[in-house]
Amino acid sequence: MTAVDLNSDMGEGFGPWKMGDDEAMLSIVSSANVACGWHAGDPLIMHRTAEIAKAKGVSIGAHPGFGDLWGFGRRVIRGDSMSDLEKQIAYQVGAMQALAVMAGHKVTHVKTHGALGNMTNDDDDMAMAVGRAIKAVDRDLVYVVMPGLSTERAAAKLGLPMAREVFADRTYDDSGNLTSRKVEGAVIHDAALAAARVLRMVQDQEVVTVTGKRLKVGIDTICVHGDNPAAVAMARTVRETLETAGVAIRPFKAG
Amino acid sequence: MTAVDLNSDMGEGFGPWKMGDDEAMLSIVSSANVACGWHAGDPLIMHRTAEIAKAKGVSIGAHPGFGDLWGFGRRVIRGDSMSDLEKQIAYQVGAMQALAVMAGHKVTHVKTHGALGNMTNDDDDMAMAVGRAIKAVDRDLVYVVMPGLSTERAAAKLGLPMAREVFADRTYDDSGNLTSRKVEGAVIHDAALAAARVLRMVQDQEVVTVTGKRLKVGIDTICVHGDNPAAVAMARTVRETLETAGVAIRPFKAG
Amino acid sequence: MTAVDLNSDMGEGFGPWKMGDDEAMLSIVSSANVACGWHAGDPLIMHRTAEIAKAKGVSIGAHPGFGDLWGFGRRVIRGDSMSDLEKQIAYQVGAMQALAVMAGHKVTHVKTHGALGNMTNDDDDMAMAVGRAIKAVDRDLVYVVMPGLSTERAAAKLGLPMAREVFADRTYDDSGNLTSRKVEGAVIHDAALAAARVLRMVQDQEVVTVTGKRLKVGIDTICVHGDNPAAVAMARTVRETLETAGVAIRPFKAG
Amino acid sequence: MTAVDLNSDMGEGFGPWKMGDDEAMLSIVSSANVACGWHAGDPLIMHRTAEIAKAKGVSIGAHPGFGDLWGFGRRVIRGDSMSDLEKQIAYQVGAMQALAVMAGHKVTHVKTHGALGNMTNDDDDMAMAVGRAIKAVDRDLVYVVMPGLSTERAAAKLGLPMAREVFADRTYDDSGNLTSRKVEGAVIHDAALAAARVLRMVQDQEVVTVTGKRLKVGIDTICVHGDNPAAVAMARTVRETLETAGVAIRPFKAG
Repeated sequence: MTAVDLNSDMGEGFGPWKMGDDEAMLSIVSSANVACGWHAGDPLIMHRTAEIAKAKGVSIGAHPGFGDLWGFGRRVIRGDSMSDLEKQIAYQVGAMQALAVMAGHKVTHVKTHGALGNMTNDDDDMAMAVGRAIKAVDRDLVYVVMPGLSTERAAAKLGLPMAREVFADRTYDDSGNLTSRKVEGAVIHDAALAAARVLRMVQDQEVVTVTGKRLKVGIDTICVHGDNPAAVAMARTVRETLETAGVAIRPFKAG
Repeated sequence: MTAVDLNSDMGEGFGPWKMGDDEAMLSIVSSANVACGWHAGDPLIMHRTAEIAKAKGVSIGAHPGFGDLWGFGRRVIRGDSMSDLEKQIAYQVGAMQALAVMAGHKVTHVKTHGALGNMTNDDDDMAMAVGRAIKAVDRDLVYVVMPGLSTERAAAKLGLPMAREVFADRTYDDSGNLTSRKVEGAVIHDAALAAARVLRMVQDQEVVTVTGKRLKVGIDTICVHGDNPAAVAMARTVRETLETAGVAIRPFKAG
Repeated sequence: MTAVDLNSDMGEGFGPWKMGDDEAMLSIVSSANVACGWHAGDPLIMHRTAEIAKAKGVSIGAHPGFGDLWGFGRRVIRGDSMSDLEKQIAYQVGAMQALAVMAGHKVTHVKTHGALGNMTNDDDDMAMAVGRAIKAVDRDLVYVVMPGLSTERAAAKLGLPMAREVFADRTYDDSGNLTSRKVEGAVIHDAALAAARVLRMVQDQEVVTVTGKRLKVGIDTICVHGDNPAAVAMARTVRETLETAGVAIRPFKAG
Repeated sequence: MTAVDLNSDMGEGFGPWKMGDDEAMLSIVSSANVACGWHAGDPLIMHRTAEIAKAKGVSIGAHPGFGDLWGFGRRVIRGDSMSDLEKQIAYQVGAMQALAVMAGHKVTHVKTHGALGNMTNDDDDMAMAVGRAIKAVDRDLVYVVMPGLSTERAAAKLGLPMAREVFADRTYDDSGNLTSRKVEGAVIHDAALAAARVLRMVQDQEVVTVTGKRLKVGIDTICVHGDNPAAVAMARTVRETLETAGVAIRPFKAG
């Protein structure tokens, strides 16, 4: 039977502020990417998220971002050397590991957030820096990558276990990258449509681009969102559609 | 031969700002308490400090503090539950562990900083919370405690390895706690005097209080400072005085 | 005709995070206390809140707090001198003034937030420090005080215009201070009861304490909350009850 | 007699950390650009700097930067709208105004810091956003601009008083912008050479570029630095050279 992982960003509150319905999402996904306190998240939220994930059999990953709480890690920040970037990633992964252990759980993957994530998928040097940081902290951690892009190449080059990710609600350009959010139609809002696209991607192991081109890719995990009720509903539809078609939802294997 | 550890706080810069002469101190002490980014320190400084410590055979510890960069962790902050405090400690210890591993080194102890340190030595609940955090992250980490105070009791109760610490430049009251800095003479500025006191404390395994009372204590480590040239000079004098008297300086044993 | 002001804390989001229903509250109250970026709030939220307040004829004030975003200014922080505290207040008031001016509005009052507010009402030195900061920045700013407590004394001593405040949803002890939230019944959840109490306080210009004692006080403004739907509903009931009884709701006069 | 202003960045410490020798520089320059707490500086430092500047007859300006303490405002941050940028500037200017007033002084100019400064001189939209923020807060504030670049155009377009600035220790390209620090020789380390260049620029009211081209510019202020002893010495040499040649050093006129 085919199986795939469903992942979502979690733990994106801070102090008194909440974001998204993490409890609901932890009943839908098989992997959670937990914010590590730099763009969102704090020790209490990290621990609580790990605790609930553990109880529900959901794998957890560190979700490092730029140190930009106000901008939620969505602003591009340039000026750090690759060596400096490595330490920022390591810091966040280590903090998440400690909170996971405290909650009786274990970090199994790393996925970069927001602007850091976008830049990493576009820049071989940054993709390698993130990979080296992961490897230095724990070489068994799975590097979540985008198939065909710099992150996949970096994981392969470094011999890191990887999970190749596609997005349920986004369209792709011919390079295999996401079309810009600024382009009309770049984000899919129809849950049934998103679910059908995901099912086809998983069954065919390919991405169909906006020009109709078919790109052969490996797919280990599907990214869904939970920051608003419609997103939660879409995530649920994606899961149900996959399961109805005989695709099991389960965490990707760690290295 | 008698042996004792010499420890000092390190890595207390932040971004563009420096504090203290860490390179000099890393040639004097046998253990470094490295700030973890909450009251001082950042990933680059943490990594660099671990790297130099490794090269010089100096043990490193996590030095967690309150999340108060502006106040340098010296302001008392009240309002967190003991459970919340545990997560704050775990976060900082985990971050330090990851940077240490990246530098080819290993965190062997935990010592709380500033106001958090003072409060922890005065409050059994806080001392236990810090201890539980250490134990949850890694039960082999050494808890740096003050002999006779709540931290020593907490480490004993939790079965954690501990290192009992005295201060080279401070006087003691009859409870075995430091006299308040506000009291005239509470801080010793004369290097030779401080060194002589330390030697006697180590040889007799006792603390002489300001009233002349002698408290029997176990002593595993001596705290020295390096935030100004006079402090560095005092630290050097303490080391030389101990070595001349046949006391070896070496890291305390981890659990 | 009797008139009184209704005030509420506002603008307590930060970056991507929201808190409370400010739009609803700005249609109920006559004064808004706007967070200044230290415990909550940011330049965008400050400007937007000032802009809407201006459009609705609502007065605005600076609502400074401790520099503790994570703790939302609710944690007690000790260690700053009174002189240092003054500068922290001035900074926040000045920032708010600039955003108000940019929005075509004007800051008319200052009310301290959370732990800073509680401590200020309990401590003559802190109440004076806040007052001196207000006076130094702009001696026409109204100092929001609690009648009978250190803030009222400080405003009087400094010759500052003041607005004496009572709380719609809290009970009072015999000293004229709020009963601790930890005491059963300290917070009133019944909107009709709160409204009836407020009306009586305004009509009689007195506070009835939990022991039944009646304290004569001047009342210029009533504090209501808007951080959840029940609070918004209570605020609306308070306003309607006052207006039905012939009490006009309008901003207190600035100096 | 010819006169010109000498300006320097100041108040760039934070909490326990110091940077530069502000006391020395405040005896050399006629204008101080004071960091406002976002990339450096804090309320205590801002107040103290204003106080000393007042005593020495030095004008002060707000020196706003990106909200990036760790990166000292030197990292490029992209993602804010121009409208968002305006509010960030206003916040910092307002905070500085309040601390200046508290110190008995007055903010007379605004100069952007680090990456924000570089981007503003390169981008008409950003230069206009900064100008609009200044104008909205106080239309009499002087906008410090680089002659021939987007900031000068923005100030002119908005009808803002401006001060045109050249740098004592940097070379210029043919566009009138600074040559990149990455280019060999872009930064002048020889104090006498820098002073001679400055004198010629002021006397001829022109900038000589690295290709020998002569650009006619208006010059109201010279930027010198104080972050290390050599920089302080160079600033002193520049001042002495100008004065010896009969050029008076005094603050530029506010609007």
